[in-house]
Parts: sequence; structure tokens; C-alpha cells
Amino acid sequence: MSSGRAFSVEPWVVREPRLDLDRMGQVESVFALSNGHIGLRGNLDEGEPHAMPGTYLNSFYERRPLPYAEGGYGYPESGQTIINVTNGKLIRLLVEDEPFDLRYGRLHRHERVLDMRSGTLSRDVEWESPAGRVVRVRSTRMVSLTQRAIAAICYEVEVVDAPALVVLQSELVANEQLPGRDEADPRVEAALTDPLVAEQHGSHGAGAYLIHGTRRSGLHVAAAMDHEVHGPETAEVTSEAAEDTGRTTVIARLEPGKPLRLVKYLAYGWSSRRSLPALHDQVRAALAAARYTGWDGLVAEQRQYLDEFWETADVEIDGDAELQQAVRLATFHVLQAGARAERRAIGAKGLTGEGYDGHTFWDTETFCLPVLSHLAPHAAADALRWRQSILPQAYERAEQLGLGGAAFPWRTIRGQECSGYWPAGTAAFHINADIADAVRRHVAATGDEVFEREVGLELLVATARLWRSLGHHDSSGEFRIDGVTGPDEYTAIVDNNVYTNLMAQQNLRYAAEVAARHGRAAARLGVDAEEMASWRDAAKSMRIPFDEVLGVHPQAEGFTSHAVWDFAGTPAHMYPLLLNVPYFDLYRKQVIKQADLVLAMQLRPDAFDLEQMRRNFAYYEGLTVRDSSLSACTQSVVAARTGHLGLAYDYLAEAALVDLDDLAGNSDHGVHIASMAGTWTAVVAGFGGMQMDDAGIAFAPRLPAALPRISFGLRWQGRQLRVEIRPDEVEYRLVSGPPMRLRHHGEALALTEDEPQVRDIPVLDPVEPVEQPHGRAPRPRHPAGPAWTAATSRRAASHPEPWAATGDMRETG
Amino acid sequence: MSSGRAFSVEPWVVREPRLDLDRMGQVESVFALSNGHIGLRGNLDEGEPHAMPGTYLNSFYERRPLPYAEGGYGYPESGQTIINVTNGKLIRLLVEDEPFDLRYGRLHRHERVLDMRSGTLSRDVEWESPAGRVVRVRSTRMVSLTQRAIAAICYEVEVVDAPALVVLQSELVANEQLPGRDEADPRVEAALTDPLVAEQHGSHGAGAYLIHGTRRSGLHVAAAMDHEVHGPETAEVTSEAAEDTGRTTVIARLEPGKPLRLVKYLAYGWSSRRSLPALHDQVRAALAAARYTGWDGLVAEQRQYLDEFWETADVEIDGDAELQQAVRLATFHVLQAGARAERRAIGAKGLTGEGYDGHTFWDTETFCLPVLSHLAPHAAADALRWRQSILPQAYERAEQLGLGGAAFPWRTIRGQECSGYWPAGTAAFHINADIADAVRRHVAATGDEVFEREVGLELLVATARLWRSLGHHDSSGEFRIDGVTGPDEYTAIVDNNVYTNLMAQQNLRYAAEVAARHGRAAARLGVDAEEMASWRDAAKSMRIPFDEVLGVHPQAEGFTSHAVWDFAGTPAHMYPLLLNVPYFDLYRKQVIKQADLVLAMQLRPDAFDLEQMRRNFAYYEGLTVRDSSLSACTQSVVAARTGHLGLAYDYLAEAALVDLDDLAGNSDHGVHIASMAGTWTAVVAGFGGMQMDDAGIAFAPRLPAALPRISFGLRWQGRQLRVEIRPDEVEYRLVSGPPMRLRHHGEALALTEDEPQVRDIPVLDPVEPVEQPHGRAPRPRHPAGPAWTAATSRRAASHPEPWAATGDMRETG
Repeated sequence: MSSGRAFSVEPWVVREPRLDLDRMGQVESVFALSNGHIGLRGNLDEGEPHAMPGTYLNSFYERRPLPYAEGGYGYPESGQTIINVTNGKLIRLLVEDEPFDLRYGRLHRHERVLDMRSGTLSRDVEWESPAGRVVRVRSTRMVSLTQRAIAAICYEVEVVDAPALVVLQSELVANEQLPGRDEADPRVEAALTDPLVAEQHGSHGAGAYLIHGTRRSGLHVAAAMDHEVHGPETAEVTSEAAEDTGRTTVIARLEPGKPLRLVKYLAYGWSSRRSLPALHDQVRAALAAARYTGWDGLVAEQRQYLDEFWETADVEIDGDAELQQAVRLATFHVLQAGARAERRAIGAKGLTGEGYDGHTFWDTETFCLPVLSHLAPHAAADALRWRQSILPQAYERAEQLGLGGAAFPWRTIRGQECSGYWPAGTAAFHINADIADAVRRHVAATGDEVFEREVGLELLVATARLWRSLGHHDSSGEFRIDGVTGPDEYTAIVDNNVYTNLMAQQNLRYAAEVAARHGRAAARLGVDAEEMASWRDAAKSMRIPFDEVLGVHPQAEGFTSHAVWDFAGTPAHMYPLLLNVPYFDLYRKQVIKQADLVLAMQLRPDAFDLEQMRRNFAYYEGLTVRDSSLSACTQSVVAARTGHLGLAYDYLAEAALVDLDDLAGNSDHGVHIASMAGTWTAVVAGFGGMQMDDAGIAFAPRLPAALPRISFGLRWQGRQLRVEIRPDEVEYRLVSGPPMRLRHHGEALALTEDEPQVRDIPVLDPVEPVEQPHGRAPRPRHPAGPAWTAATSRRAASHPEPWAATGDMRETG
Repeated sequence: MSSGRAFSVEPWVVREPRLDLDRMGQVESVFALSNGHIGLRGNLDEGEPHAMPGTYLNSFYERRPLPYAEGGYGYPESGQTIINVTNGKLIRLLVEDEPFDLRYGRLHRHERVLDMRSGTLSRDVEWESPAGRVVRVRSTRMVSLTQRAIAAICYEVEVVDAPALVVLQSELVANEQLPGRDEADPRVEAALTDPLVAEQHGSHGAGAYLIHGTRRSGLHVAAAMDHEVHGPETAEVTSEAAEDTGRTTVIARLEPGKPLRLVKYLAYGWSSRRSLPALHDQVRAALAAARYTGWDGLVAEQRQYLDEFWETADVEIDGDAELQQAVRLATFHVLQAGARAERRAIGAKGLTGEGYDGHTFWDTETFCLPVLSHLAPHAAADALRWRQSILPQAYERAEQLGLGGAAFPWRTIRGQECSGYWPAGTAAFHINADIADAVRRHVAATGDEVFEREVGLELLVATARLWRSLGHHDSSGEFRIDGVTGPDEYTAIVDNNVYTNLMAQQNLRYAAEVAARHGRAAARLGVDAEEMASWRDAAKSMRIPFDEVLGVHPQAEGFTSHAVWDFAGTPAHMYPLLLNVPYFDLYRKQVIKQADLVLAMQLRPDAFDLEQMRRNFAYYEGLTVRDSSLSACTQSVVAARTGHLGLAYDYLAEAALVDLDDLAGNSDHGVHIASMAGTWTAVVAGFGGMQMDDAGIAFAPRLPAALPRISFGLRWQGRQLRVEIRPDEVEYRLVSGPPMRLRHHGEALALTEDEPQVRDIPVLDPVEPVEQPHGRAPRPRHPAGPAWTAATSRRAASHPEPWAATGDMRETG
């Protein structure tokens, strides 16, 4: 692995100052552009070298067999895997017969810049061919946030020293040759190698199109391109198409100082139902609209869309330039994942890579949607409408499992359960309460009653019914939920997981409340007063185990009686433990992969008093190894809320830098959308102390000593709000919208447009430091000396090794 | 499925009075002959029709991939599957150019008889060919119990009406074409289709041999045959061999009344190490010895071996002819499975079929060996020596799992873990205590101190070390074993399974005791006084949960708080539940596949008082659905011990008839060796009340009302003992051996050879009846009327459907 970071630290852009072949996979993910419908990995224009070429369309997948050494009832037989569709990013260049390939010749300069305000990835290269020809290539790529089916590339090539004949081949390529997959299973190989079957193709003037279908999932994809060429009059443009290739070729003799400029418009469409002509016409129409808008028009639209987004969404962090950049990148990728998903799933990796087969998990509802509900509410609403759209599959799954209501899949693309290991899949029923919670938060954040009635109600009723059938009353009258798996994947199949029970309790209670509010709509779903009462009763008598001896909540029944993992005897190279230790041993011991009880404290703060929170947090800090990227952000929120501000800062940085610093070592599979979303939440719900409940919205801001200022914005029931936290005071500003009330550290406060309110931050009583397992403390952020060193500080110098490989981690918070 | 039974009821033979193609698979299993080294399914001499042709050699297997939808650390990547080796049973017959095939022509008579005293399977057929030729075929087949490598067939053909030219082709056939496997996985198909690679072959006079190897497991098998022909002088005998076929052809023109008789001697040998010439010579030598002994000699040896066996082993049951026959068949198959296994595994199906891939589970130690220790002690000792021989793999597995000592595989042929579903495989650690318990019982039954020191000690130390590392002391000082799976496979990954903890307790305690007794040998294994003390301490503080409210032992921590399965709402066709319900739902509810806590009461009676036993038995009867054939025998034992004698009788019949009546519907995969062994145990430990402890051997006999007399024998520390139970009294007789003491219903009693002691059986206080889950009571045995109807009673008439398909089951015991 290379030393140093891949990127420079700048506030609004992510710059790769030079090409590093060893980091290519990570950089392709970080530089992926997406609008939630189309995703283009940050591959080089010329296609090679690459770590993993990737062009994705939301929910375009192939089915594949799921094999079992020993099968069982209800095991899914077929999985779904996102597939690399027709690559339209390709623009190959020949200079006097020599292919432009960075692995040969000399690279004078190679810089790429992801600009988070313009929503573009641009590249600036100066290359000397093996024969000594020097060319400069500048390209800019975008996936349009305003025209959902469109991506575009502006490609400019210029000869530096002497005239030369150049050939550009702008292509569509289907069934690209991919690097080998991990799976050894030849059936999986067979299903996913060359997954696209050619159905139609054509070329015309400066463009071409290809239509392909999948073998098993019954989907069809159309990709089309058109071009504008600006250059010498003598340039010749031809196009051709074959089954798996569309190609527009531009040949021109270039003079130094007179570049050849190619604008490539790219349109994608897919469908399981529409005819091939309809699909063809759809992409041609999208292309026509894009050409009509033109490159400059697309760029301007993109900028305007993002300006509006950032106006609310921007988080400013003074005193830590690296974190400032990271938080913006995180917000940007969350937007990209959801912006135009439009009733399709938001995957754990967005459309930035093939990690987890492109599946959607609880990440969407628990980590992403609470952010989108405040920054891009239409995207959050659409994601929940997608859940509503897969209710038929969820009802069917519940029936197969012998349960009432709906059982949403643990992982899926199209709605069917695709989890091949049920103790950490099917048994993780909490996803259903997580969906209900996302509904609750979305309605609270937006005040959208139409959504509540038309989308929320059905989701709430379906999930409440699931919980009512999944749990039972024991002889003492308590309502138990046995044999399920909570968020922590190092514990499985347990009774009364506190997180699950608290979230189910809220689900049941809220479903009854919403059903009561929309009586007629509820009645149409068959809900009557008796059923609502049974939900309320179950919620009321929900068992929440508590260990009286230790004075903490056990993560689940009996958890605190288990042996504590031998952390001292576990060397750093054993992490992540799941790769080196059997599940059997993890499940039976006190060792936690990711926040579970601590997440319950974040999402259900009403269920704990401060003293319990502090004791619980301290207890679980000592057991949590963070082998999941879904943990640090939650630990940051609860650390902040329990007064461990320095620790909260450390965790925030870990969550924020997961992909920029490749902390999990797998950013090449795609970025960690949940950790990125959690970064925003760590700022807003952690340092900002934001909570929503029946009484409205509340803040309890506090900064860590190292940071002089944090400012964040959010949408609240049609308003735009900005909060600026300084060490001793906070300013609340209603940027737009009708007057509102909020609470500041418990104090009620009225806010009107253009009349900011400033309040003091109460002094924090000192708290006992907490300890993490041996070797698993987060890397301390600025452990000593001045809180803030320099805006351009490069961690690369002082920390040559990436986090995941260091043993140099502090042991106390 | 055909109606009626496949077999007639006779005391010493199992007779199939007519051929029933629908029952062929079941009959092939019941009629399988084996000596524990070679196994021949009861296929027809001519090979076809068949359900599943089967010729097996103990531990001759092929490796195959174990696929996972989601892999995990420590998952076995490769399984082991017993394979059908070279078929030497084949003798094809042509009558005037027409092949003898029962599917064509007319069958005048077809009878097969398994004789449990002679250890032979004989057949008597009269068949009319499509062209009207009538022939009579009589064959007798044996697998020699005295000559381990030898099987033999005596085949006689006679024309009935008119002279005819007949051709006999006696064959060796490798890579027989098999009916399709269930697995859909093409990799498994590839590994197991035509698994044998030809290595050498040859023919000579009236014989031939074939040597083959496997592709992955590196084993080689040699099969050789030789023949004696008795018939017309003009008979011509030729032999030939090719890669997968050896053939001796006999051609003769037969006259009515002058049969042609062919004696076929068959020898098998296999090795992973020996050279092909060595293997070849080995089978030729075995053949030579068999020919020297001759057919009559082999038959006589077999008879003598079995006479000696039955002298001790025979169980006489008056008043129930069907059960009498079934108990003998059960005893016979248990002997066949183990007799000459000689330091190889005893599989769950013996060598009677390919069920469970030919694997060995805890069945061997918990069900089989306690029987063999009393009836064929050398076989029990050898089976435990096999366990000792796979200690290297068990040490390695423990290390892989991060544990001390040895972790024996849940299922295996050669010692490596082959379980592809860890919650019901790896997690079922009780197998290690089960092995220790088999050592304890074997030493108690035989008094063999050399075995204790040379074999037992190492097994005990290895397993005690496992338990010591698997459990931990909690803060209150109790020793807990968390996250394991007990015998009941409808519950998994639980804390403090009572069965596991009690068996581990005994394992730890007994290991310390034996190590103390053999101090020097223990020291060589690194055992010191501190380690022994730590075993005793863990045993002493072992946690045994108890539900004070219900007054019963929960099967595991928290079990009695789980929802009780909705038995009333579960129709009969849903059983076995594991085929129709997800594990997830089974694990979290009170529903029990097979005796677990009840088995603990059988094996650790010292840990319960009678009142607890009765309450526990009643509680668990109400939850146990017996979806496993390992349950009825145990329920019979504990029913008898708690005074439910009628119910014990019902369960005994269910255990005994599992294959004769195909109660589980899968006897075609091989017979249920554990249930067969459990049948003997149900008689001896249930109705006989036999227990062994430090004070010696004890009986507490009692008969169910329906049976006038049971007599059984056993070996006890070099003695031969017989117990005859009558309704009001019991007779103890020391058939041979030095004077001994025993206890009768608590009363001490001295016994010397030829001085039987008769004692009264104390009157049993009436007990409250117990209830089984709705529809899951055992079929009542003679529910009303005279206890015993007729010696030749055929259940076929009154119960046309087999048990598994009837809903007509009583609901109270």
C-alpha cells in the first residue's frame, strides 16, 4: 500500500494531485459521480488501467443462485447482484498511432478534481508518449442532477510541441472484461460473467446506441450517446455499432495551441416492461434534451441545483480543514446516492461500487434518510415510497415466515430477501422498526401529512402487525421479542434485544397514533380500535431488560453474564474479528461489532435518563471494537450527548474520513454511504444535540475544545434553519419560513425570520473518561498542543500508515 | 405408497413375502448386510430394478465442496461423502437370450428372508420369462462377520419345465449409474458422479479384480471375485476384465431338476497408503482364505459367531410378536454396524445407505456404544479407539476455534468437521461430553483398566480441556457454558443448556478422577494437580438453571419464557417442522425436536430427584414433537423410570419399528442405527431400569401391563448376566463369571453362577398421565382389549397407512 493520502485538503474540492495506481480502487469510489439513477465510477476516460470499471443503473441487477452446504426452509434460493452496464464513459485516444495509456510513456502531470459545488469530476493530464509526443488532455465529467437519464463528458486534447494526427474513439461497451470476483462458485461466475445479452444496436452521425437484456432478471437497458465536435474543420467523424460496442471516431490533425474538443452526451434507460422501441426512443429523447441544453447549460443547471442544496446543507467546521472537507464530501455523496433515486432503493454503497452486491440494508432508513429528510426531503420521501412499493414482497416473506404484517428483506435490490445467512439476515427484524422510525422522522422533519397518510400509514401498519405477531406476552404479562438479532452483528439470535424492543415499541405506539389520526385510511387497511389497542398494549408492556447489579442495560437478555472477550490477548491483526474468529465464539461473548444499545440511546433518548446513558455508554465503550463502519458516527453522537466531547470529535473524524483515508480498507468496493450520512448526524445530533419529539425540535449544542466553530443548516417543516455553535454560545437563525419554536438546552425559544437568537451554552460538568477495548480506541484527533494547527495540514506526513494498519491507537477517550 | 407392511412377523427372520417396487428403497436398507467394514444394500442379484444400489466400505469416501451463500471463518470448505464402490453383488442371468428382469414376464413367486441367526439374506424366485420359460432362482448372500474382507453369494438357477440355455454373468462394476442426487449444485454432482478412477484390472480363470482410486480423497479400493461352479459338465466358464467391469461368465444348458450353482467369493480392501500391488495381493489373499473355508465353512462360522452373540444379546419379549421381531432386527443391525468396524467410524446409517453422506455423529457414542459395550465390547472399544485416532484433527479444530483441548467434529467420516450449518453443527459441543460418557460407560461395563489408561484417559483429558476453555465463571462464581446447541435441534445457540452442562460436568469430574487414577500417564499428557483441580472446580460450580415458578429445569437459560409453539394450529402435514418452518421460528419458541432435558435425565439420573424427573418429564412431553428418530427411545426410558409404563411401551414400539414400518419415511436412505440401539436401551434401561454408577450396576425392572415377560442379557465386567422380568417378579441369573453384586429397586443383592435370584417388583404408585403436543402422541400399542392378540398379528390390516402419514394419534399417554 502506498504511503500518504490520496487527496489534498481543500474546502470545496477533493483533489488527487498525482496518479497512484495502488489507490486506484479507492479513488474510483470517492470520485464516483451519481444522481441516484446513474452511477459512474471514477474510472479514467480511456478505460485502463482500472481497479474496477463501473457503470451502474439503480436497481438494474441480475439474479444469481445462492448455494448452501445445508439448506433450510425459507432460505432464499436466488440473490440479486448489481451489474456493470454498458460503459459510456470511454473515450480512447490515439496519438500518431500510439494509444494514450498512462502505464506507458511519461506522465508530466496528472491531476483530478472532484468539485462539490459544480458536481463535476475534472482531469488535467500532460503525457509524453513512448515516442516522445506530448499531449495535454483535459476532461470534465458529470452525471446530471437535473436531467436524470443524462451524463456528459467534455473532453479536450491538445498537442504541445508539434502537430500530430490524433484519433478519438468515444465508445459504448457492454460486457466489459472485469477483474476476477472473489466467489469461487462457478454458478455465480456463470451468472455474472458477460451478463448482458445484445438485443439491438445502431449508429447515426455522431452517435450510437446499444440495447441489452439480462438472462434471468428480465431487464433491458438502453445506452445511447451523441457528440459535438469542436476542432479543425478537417476533423472527420464517423460512427458504428455492433452487438457489444458503439463507437464514434473523430480523426483530426492537431496543431499546438488548437485543441480538439469533444462533448459526449450519454443517456441511459432501463425497464422490465417497456418494449425495445420504447426504450430506444426514451434514451434518444433524453439525448435530444441534453443536446438542446448543451454542455454549458448542463453545467449551469448542475451548479444551480447544488447551490440550492448547499445553501441549507453546508456544514462549516472551523479549526479542522481535513474534517471540513470530509464532511462536505460525505454530504455530497449522500445527496448523490439519493437525489434522483426516485422510488428505487438507495444502496449501502450508493452507485459507487459493487460492494455488498449493490444491496440496500437498514443503512438507508437508519443512517441516510434522517439526513435526507432535513436536506433533500423529496429524496427521503421517494426512498420510503420505494419501501412501500416492495410491500407485496414483504407481505409474502412474512407469510413464508409464519408472521403477520410485512417482513422487509435484510438485503435486497428489488424487494426479495437476498441474505444467505439468516442469523445475521432474516433474524435482524429491527429493519422493520427502522423503516417505521424513518417514517416518523420524515414526518416530524417535514410535517408532511399527505405523506404520512399515503405512504407512512401503510408502512406503519404493516410493521406494527409484524411486531405484534413476532412478540408474545409471557406469564408475567411482559411482551417479549425472542430469538432475533439486533444491530450488533457479533451477537445473534437473542431474546429481548433492547434496541429491537425499544424500536418495536415506538413502531407499535406510533402506528397506533397515526392510524388514529387517519381513521378512514386506517380502516381501509383493516385496522380497527381493537388492533390499535393491542399495539399500544404490547408497546406498554414491552420488556426492557436491566442488569441491576451492574446498573446497565444488557444489550439483550443475559448479555452481561457472558464472558468478556479477551481484548488484551487479541493482537491488532486479528481485526476485523469476523475474518479470524468463528461467529460461534463472537456470539457467546461480550464483544460488540457496532453500536447497538448505544444506537438505541441515540434513537430513543426518551427511554433513558442521563445517568443510565452515561453508565451504559461507559460499559459498551469497553466492549465495542468498531469492526463495522456503522458504529463510529453513533458513538460520536452519544459521546457528545454524554459529555465526552473530545471522544465524540475523534469518532466524528473516523466516520467522516472512512473513504478519504480508506479506514476500513475496502473503499474500493464503493463509498460507505451510511458512515457519510452518519457524519452529518454526528455533527447535528451530536455536537448540535438536535432531537425531535412530539414537542418539536430541540438543540443542546456543545463544541469539543479543539474546534472554534461549527455551523450547520437543516430544513424543518418547510423552514430553513441555521445553527452556528461557538465555544460559549450558539446562534439560531431562521433563514426562511414562518416563525417557529425550538428548545435550547431545555429552554423554549421563539424564532422568526431574520431575527437570530443567541444563547449561552451551559457549562458542562466534567465526566469520567471512558475506555475502549485494548487497541481499539479511535485515533485521537489533535491529542496535544494547539487545537488547530494549519488549514492545509496534511496528516499524510505525520501518519504515514492508514488507520486500519496502525497499532498506535490511544486507549482512553 | 403401498398399503400394508413390507414384512411378515416372525421371531427370528424378516421375510418379504412378495416384491413391492414402491418399498424397494426401504427393503434394500432393512436387508442390508454388513460386518461394519463392508456393507451391501439388499439390492437384487441382477442389479435392477433398484431404488439405490449400494456397496460401501467403511470410511471410503470422496471429498466434495461445501458451498455457502455467505461464508464465514472456520466454515469447513470441503465435505466427505461415502461413495458407492465397486458392486460385486451382481449376478445377471439370461435364459434363452432373455434377461432375467422382474419388471418383465411373470413373477410366480418372490420371497426374501433375512435370517438373524444365520446372518444371511436369501431369496427364492420363480419367474416366467416373456417367452414363457419358467426358472427358479435361489440365492443366499452373506457379509462375513468372521472374515472381515469377505462377502459371498451362493446362487442357484434351475429350469422348471424344459431344458434351456442359461448364461450367468457374475460381475464387478465400478461407477454404477445412480439415481439423481437431490443436490442441485453442479460442483457436488461433478465430485460424486463416476467418483472412481480406474487404476488396474485383471482376470484369471473364474475370477477378476478391479482397482480404482478417488480423485480428491486419495483413496484406493480393490475388489476381487472368484467363483466355484457346480452344474453340468458342459458348463463353460470364462472371465474378463476392463476398466470398470470384471466379468465371469458361465454358460450351461440346463435340464429341469438339475440346477446350476455358482458360489461367488468377493473380497474388498482399501487404503490411502498401500501400493496397488499390495492392495491387489491383499484382496487375493482374502479370497484365497475364503475359498479355502468354502461356502459351507463361511456359513458355519457366521452361525457360530451369531450364536455366541445372541446368547447374551437376545431380548425376548413375550406378548408382542411384532416388537419381538423388531428388537431382534434392531440388535442385529447394531451389531452389523460395529462388529468389524475396527477403529473406523460407525455411521448414523451404518453401512446400509448413503443418508447423511455416511457421516458419524454423536449417535455413535450416545446411542450405539452403550449397547455395544454390553453386547460386543470389542466393537465399542474399537469405536472409541477410532475417536482417539482422530484426535489430531480434533485438536486442530479446537485451535481453529480458539479453544483448548479437542473439538470433535459434529459430522465426519475421516475426522474433519463436515457440518455446513454451524448453529446445529460446530455449536453442538455436547458431542465431546458424549464421547467422554461413552468412555465412562464402557469402562464401567467392562472394567477394562487398560482401555481406560490407554484410550480413555487421552479422550477424557482432551475433552475436559475443551470444556474448561469453553466455559467461564461469571461474577457470582458459577461456571457457565454459553452460546452452544444441545441435542434438541429446534433450539440453538443458547446459554447453559442443561444437558450440555450436566454432561460437561461429568466429563470434567470423571477426567479428573481417571487422571488421578493414572497419574503417570496423565502427567505424560501434561496434566498436573492444578489442572485437575480446575476441572473439579468448574464441575462443582457448573450452572444448572432451574425455573422456580414452574418447578422445572428449563432446557436452557430462558427457555421457559419463550412462547409455546402453536401446536393446536399446526396441521399434521407440517411435520417434520424443519421442512415447513424457518429455524428462526423454531429456535425462539418452546417446541422440541428430540429429547434434550429428558435425555439428560436418562444419562445423569443422579442429578435429579424423582419429583423433578416427573415434573420435567411431564413438561417436556408437552413440547416434544419427535421430528427426530433419536427421541422415542429416550422418551421410552424416562417414561418407564417415571412410572408411565404404557407410554414407555408406545415409545419403545416407535423406536423399534422405525425401519420395519418406515415410520420416518426415509428408511430408503439407510436404517436408523441410533433408534435401533435405543430400542435395546429402552428395554434394558427403561423397563429393566438398568443404571451404572460408582456403586456398580442396578436394576429397577417393571413391565407395562400389556407384556407378560421380557428377558434380556448383558455383559458386565467379564460376566454374562440375564434378567427375566415378569409382571410381579424378576429373576437375575449370572450365566457365567465370578460372583457379583447388584441392586434391585435399591436392595443390594449378591449373585453367583447358577444361583438365580428372584425378587418381587414393588408396587408402582399411580402417576398423573402426561400429554404430548396436539397430534404428536405416539401411536398407542394395543390401546384396549387383551394385552396381546395373536403371535402373527399384522398391523397392516388395521393400520393401512404408515405412522408418518396418519393423523390418528392419541393425545394422552
